[in-house]
Amino acid sequence: MSDHRLRVPSEPALGRRAGIDLFDALGTTRSIRRFTDEPVDEADLATMLFAASRAPTGSNRQPVRWLVLRDGPSAEAARRLLGDAARSMWSGKRSRDGYEQGSGNDPSSPKARMARAMEAFVDGLDTVPVILLPALVRYRAPTPTEGASVYPAVQNLLLAARGLGYGGVLTGFQGLVEDELRQVLGVPDGVGLMATIALGRPEGGHGPVRRRPLDEIVFDDRWDEPARWAVEPDGTRHTAAGPRPA
Amino acid sequence: MSDHRLRVPSEPALGRRAGIDLFDALGTTRSIRRFTDEPVDEADLATMLFAASRAPTGSNRQPVRWLVLRDGPSAEAARRLLGDAARSMWSGKRSRDGYEQGSGNDPSSPKARMARAMEAFVDGLDTVPVILLPALVRYRAPTPTEGASVYPAVQNLLLAARGLGYGGVLTGFQGLVEDELRQVLGVPDGVGLMATIALGRPEGGHGPVRRRPLDEIVFDDRWDEPARWAVEPDGTRHTAAGPRPA
Repeated sequence: MSDHRLRVPSEPALGRRAGIDLFDALGTTRSIRRFTDEPVDEADLATMLFAASRAPTGSNRQPVRWLVLRDGPSAEAARRLLGDAARSMWSGKRSRDGYEQGSGNDPSSPKARMARAMEAFVDGLDTVPVILLPALVRYRAPTPTEGASVYPAVQNLLLAARGLGYGGVLTGFQGLVEDELRQVLGVPDGVGLMATIALGRPEGGHGPVRRRPLDEIVFDDRWDEPARWAVEPDGTRHTAAGPRPA
Repeated sequence: MSDHRLRVPSEPALGRRAGIDLFDALGTTRSIRRFTDEPVDEADLATMLFAASRAPTGSNRQPVRWLVLRDGPSAEAARRLLGDAARSMWSGKRSRDGYEQGSGNDPSSPKARMARAMEAFVDGLDTVPVILLPALVRYRAPTPTEGASVYPAVQNLLLAARGLGYGGVLTGFQGLVEDELRQVLGVPDGVGLMATIALGRPEGGHGPVRRRPLDEIVFDDRWDEPARWAVEPDGTRHTAAGPRPA
């Protein structure tokens, strides 16, 4: 008997653990970059990956493979590559984007807090409980829309993680060292590494998810035509959009 | 007061409609291509788009805009473009991929049923209740991973639709007529149309979601290393992967 939270529709719902409401999960899943040392339970990992596998893919080709990096020998080498690349990327970005200037001088500013969180995140990449690399088995040359068969699965995985008390963050660190990773992990030609997901038990609370106001991003019938019906839940708090680390 | 199912975390949960369990939604959301004539409620549409807006984006740039096509003048023109392109694409695919040969001759075969469903879907694109075109405001040249900032939102939208009793399907039809759509809808340069989503109340039942076995798609530590712990829920039924229409 597997210890799964995802019910196959034909099965009885009995015996499942208490779940989380879909809309609660959609509204509160946010990027988590600080993790406790607790390992990710294998049955939970299986549940997350099963959830990922339910996502749609173009022509139902199901071209995604998941490389799960924990404490194996290849994982160790891959973590080192990812960690070094992320630290070097962040160090450049921090000075380039002026994280230590202006409001960044005030340690309680959002800018300074974000910088500290990113610093800790990239410093800890070698020891984060799990790193997942979703890979795309290509059947044609890369295109800007090929992610339509990959990232829905990634979001399913992150939502399932949230539902099981974990958290994660979707990054593009693999893009900084793709050739090296490919060699270390034995990834064949014709397969693209599409994301780097860090996963574990969140340390500290989840902050709120804040976004641009909905009426700035929804157009009715034509570009820039406001959608007056695109009303948000009462109490929604917004953030200015704009470049942020990771 | 907005009529929203998505709760802002700081708000009380009172007054919300009965929800759906996250894992039920993850396990049963599948592509829906046949819709009733019932329009999509605007408050429901707002809830789906709000859910979409909660998804992560690279550096939190929030670069996605949503073109909502219903019965406006631009929508009508865009639907005609999409419908014509989809019908022509499907007609070529049907003969090229031999949908009328082999088991396709048996009207009860999966092949023949899929062909009928696709036929009805592309025939009905001009009148499907809602078509959504998620658009990406680019800040750099297109890349194969830029969809990481778009398709998580698309999946959130499809899951929210499922939770509200709607269904949808993610297609790439816009890619067949992107220049024409861009003109008809007034989409500026530097913005990519990333998907075509059809949405409405499902006609008929949802079939089960079937996928490849999980242990074929999850690798532990290294490419092709089996993940013995990647166990599926009891009773999971599989499908052979492979090209399917849409």
